[in-house]
Amino acid sequence: MSSSDRNFEGWAGVDDRATKGGMVLKQFQPKPWDDNDIEVKVLYCGICGSDVHSLSGSWGPLDPSKPNICGHEIVGQVVQVGTKVDTSVKVGDYVGIGAQSDSCRQCEWCLNGEEEVCASITWTMNSPFQHGNAKAAGFISCGGFANYWRGPAQFAVKVPDGLDLGSVAPMLCGGITVYSPLEQYGAGTRAKRVGVIGIGGLGHYAVLFAKAMGAEVTAISRGTDKMEDAKKLGADKYIAMSEGIKGHENSVDLIICTINPDTLDVLPYMPLLRPHGTLCLVGIVRNPLSVPCFSLISGNRRVAGSNVGSPAAIGRMLQLVVDKKIESWVQRWSFNDINKALPAFEEGKPRFRFVMVNTENGGKL
Amino acid sequence: MSSSDRNFEGWAGVDDRATKGGMVLKQFQPKPWDDNDIEVKVLYCGICGSDVHSLSGSWGPLDPSKPNICGHEIVGQVVQVGTKVDTSVKVGDYVGIGAQSDSCRQCEWCLNGEEEVCASITWTMNSPFQHGNAKAAGFISCGGFANYWRGPAQFAVKVPDGLDLGSVAPMLCGGITVYSPLEQYGAGTRAKRVGVIGIGGLGHYAVLFAKAMGAEVTAISRGTDKMEDAKKLGADKYIAMSEGIKGHENSVDLIICTINPDTLDVLPYMPLLRPHGTLCLVGIVRNPLSVPCFSLISGNRRVAGSNVGSPAAIGRMLQLVVDKKIESWVQRWSFNDINKALPAFEEGKPRFRFVMVNTENGGKL
Repeated sequence: MSSSDRNFEGWAGVDDRATKGGMVLKQFQPKPWDDNDIEVKVLYCGICGSDVHSLSGSWGPLDPSKPNICGHEIVGQVVQVGTKVDTSVKVGDYVGIGAQSDSCRQCEWCLNGEEEVCASITWTMNSPFQHGNAKAAGFISCGGFANYWRGPAQFAVKVPDGLDLGSVAPMLCGGITVYSPLEQYGAGTRAKRVGVIGIGGLGHYAVLFAKAMGAEVTAISRGTDKMEDAKKLGADKYIAMSEGIKGHENSVDLIICTINPDTLDVLPYMPLLRPHGTLCLVGIVRNPLSVPCFSLISGNRRVAGSNVGSPAAIGRMLQLVVDKKIESWVQRWSFNDINKALPAFEEGKPRFRFVMVNTENGGKL
Repeated sequence: MSSSDRNFEGWAGVDDRATKGGMVLKQFQPKPWDDNDIEVKVLYCGICGSDVHSLSGSWGPLDPSKPNICGHEIVGQVVQVGTKVDTSVKVGDYVGIGAQSDSCRQCEWCLNGEEEVCASITWTMNSPFQHGNAKAAGFISCGGFANYWRGPAQFAVKVPDGLDLGSVAPMLCGGITVYSPLEQYGAGTRAKRVGVIGIGGLGHYAVLFAKAMGAEVTAISRGTDKMEDAKKLGADKYIAMSEGIKGHENSVDLIICTINPDTLDVLPYMPLLRPHGTLCLVGIVRNPLSVPCFSLISGNRRVAGSNVGSPAAIGRMLQLVVDKKIESWVQRWSFNDINKALPAFEEGKPRFRFVMVNTENGGKL
C-alpha cells in the first residue's frame, strides 16, 4: 500500500510565546512515505516535560527552521501500513509511539531490542531522520500534537487489550523512562528496596511501577507536601529531605532520580543507598553533577543514567500495567485547549500527567 | 592459646620527614590480644600509594597521636592462633593481610563474604578497632612495616601453595582493589572489553587480571610512554589520551580508573564506554568529580566506585594467579632500606610495585 494523501495538521510552536498560549494550528508536511512506515490517526497525546522545555526555550531558543510539532506520547489507530512493514501491526490496531521514532535498526543493540542505546537515534520531534528518503530530504520529525502521525512501524507498540487508551499515552515517555531503569536494575528482585526522588510526572510512575514489581518503595521529596499523594500511589516510606535522612541511611538498593533542576547535588542522596546501590538519573540536569569520589568508593556505589526505553520494553511495561491493574493519575484536555494546557503544565499543575485528547478523531475526554 | 610476649618493633612515621628518609624504627604495643586473633611473623610488606599518602601528609598532616606504623600488604607466617579462631588457619601457615583488618562480622555483607562494604570497617593502619578489648582500650591499628602483626584471623587469607610469597604481598591491596571490580562487573563475561586508565601500581594488575579473566584489554594513559610496558603486560590496545580517542569510541564495557589526581574530568573517558558501560574508580580523587548528566543518560552509562575487596575475594584472586600463572612486576627492598624505598616510591620509581622484605624473619630479597 502506498502513501495516503491525508491532510496533516498539528499544533506548532512558532515563537517564544509557544507555552504561554501561543501555539498555532497549521498544516504540515509529514516525512516522505517509506514502505516501512505506518500512518496513525492520533487519539491521545501526552504532554511531557521535554515538550515544554523544547517549546518554552528553556533548552535553548525555539528554532523556527524546525517544525516544532511536539508531542511524543502518542496513542492512535493505525490507518495505513507500508508494504515492507515486518511487524504484526495492521490497519485498525491501536498503537503507541514514544519519544523515539527510529534507530539504525542493524547494530547489536537494535537487533537485541535495545534501540534506546543505539548511536543513531531519531527522536519523535524536531530530530533528523537518518534513513532512506526522509534522510535524503533532510526531514525533521514531527510529533503527536497533530491529527496524524507517520513513521517507522518498528517504533509503534501495539496496546494490549483492556487498557484505557488515554491513560496509556503518558506512559510512552514518562512511564517507560522510569520503567526501563527499574527493569534494568531489577526492581523487586536484585533491587528489593527502591527510592524515587521527585513525586511528579515521572516519579508517580516510578512509585506505581516499582511497587507493582514487588519492591518496597520510598518516596523522596523536598518537603512533606507530596506525602499524602505518595502514600496513595503505594509508597511504603517517605523522606522529606528538608527534615533530614536520619533513620533512612543505607535503606535502598536503587534510587530513580526524576527531578531535573539546573544543578543537582547528589551528595545528600548517596547515604540513602545500600552497598552496591545505584542512583539512576532519568531527568536531564543541565550542569555537570558534582559527585564526591568517596561517595562512590565507599560501599561500591554508582551514579547512572537511563534514557527512555525500547519498543520491546514499552510492551513489557504495558503488560505489567494490564497484569497489575496499575492506575495512573491523568488529567485530560481537549486538543483545542492546548493553549490552556501548556501554561497550566508550566505552572506545575499536573497531578501527575496531562493528556491531550483528539475528540475529532474519536478520543474520549 | 593466650597472647605471646613477643617484642613488636616497626618503622613509624614521626614527623613530616617520614617519606623523605625520616622513618624511625621503634618498639610498639600491638592491639590487646583477643581469642579471635592470630599473630603473624612478617616476611614481606608491599608499599602502597595510601601508605605514602598517609605518611607524607598529602591526606592531611601526620597525626603524632597515632601509631603511624603503616604497611597493609602483609605476607607472613602464622606463629600464634587464638582459641576462638574459627577459620582453618594454623601455626606455620603462610597468610596475607590486606588493607582491611576488621568489620562488624554480623551484618548481611559480612555474613555474605563482602566485608569490604560493611559500615564498620577497621583498616589495617591508623584506624580504630571497633570490637572487644581493643575498642575498649581505644586501640588504633598498626600495619606491617614491622616484625610481627597481630589481628583478627578472619582477615588473614591463606596463600595457596605454589605462589611466590613476595609477589603476593602487593596484591593484597593493589591487586584486590582492581580484581574486585573486575569480578563484580564480570570482566571476560558480561564485560568482554575492559579499559584500564593509568598503567601504574594498580593499573598493571588490572591489565594482568582482566587479560587472565579473558577480557580484551585496552590500556589508557596520558601519553605513549607506557605503551611498551602495557603491551608486555598483555594489553591488546593502547590509547594515548593526548592523541585523542578517535577510533576507540564505544569500545569498552568497563573502565577501571586507577589514577588519583586531585581533580578528575571523566568526560573525555565516557565516550570510550559502550552502552550500559561503567567507569569504575578505585583511586581516590580528592575533589568531587564533575559528571555531565548526558554522558550517563545517553547509552545508559554509569560512574561507579569500588573499595578494596573481601578476604574471600582475595582468595579467589590468588587462585586466579595460581591458575593463570600471573607474574606481577615487583621490585624488592630490604626492610632496613625503607628510608630509601619510600622516597623512591614518591618519585614514581616503581615498575610497578615495591615490596619490603624482612630478611631477619626469613623473607627473600
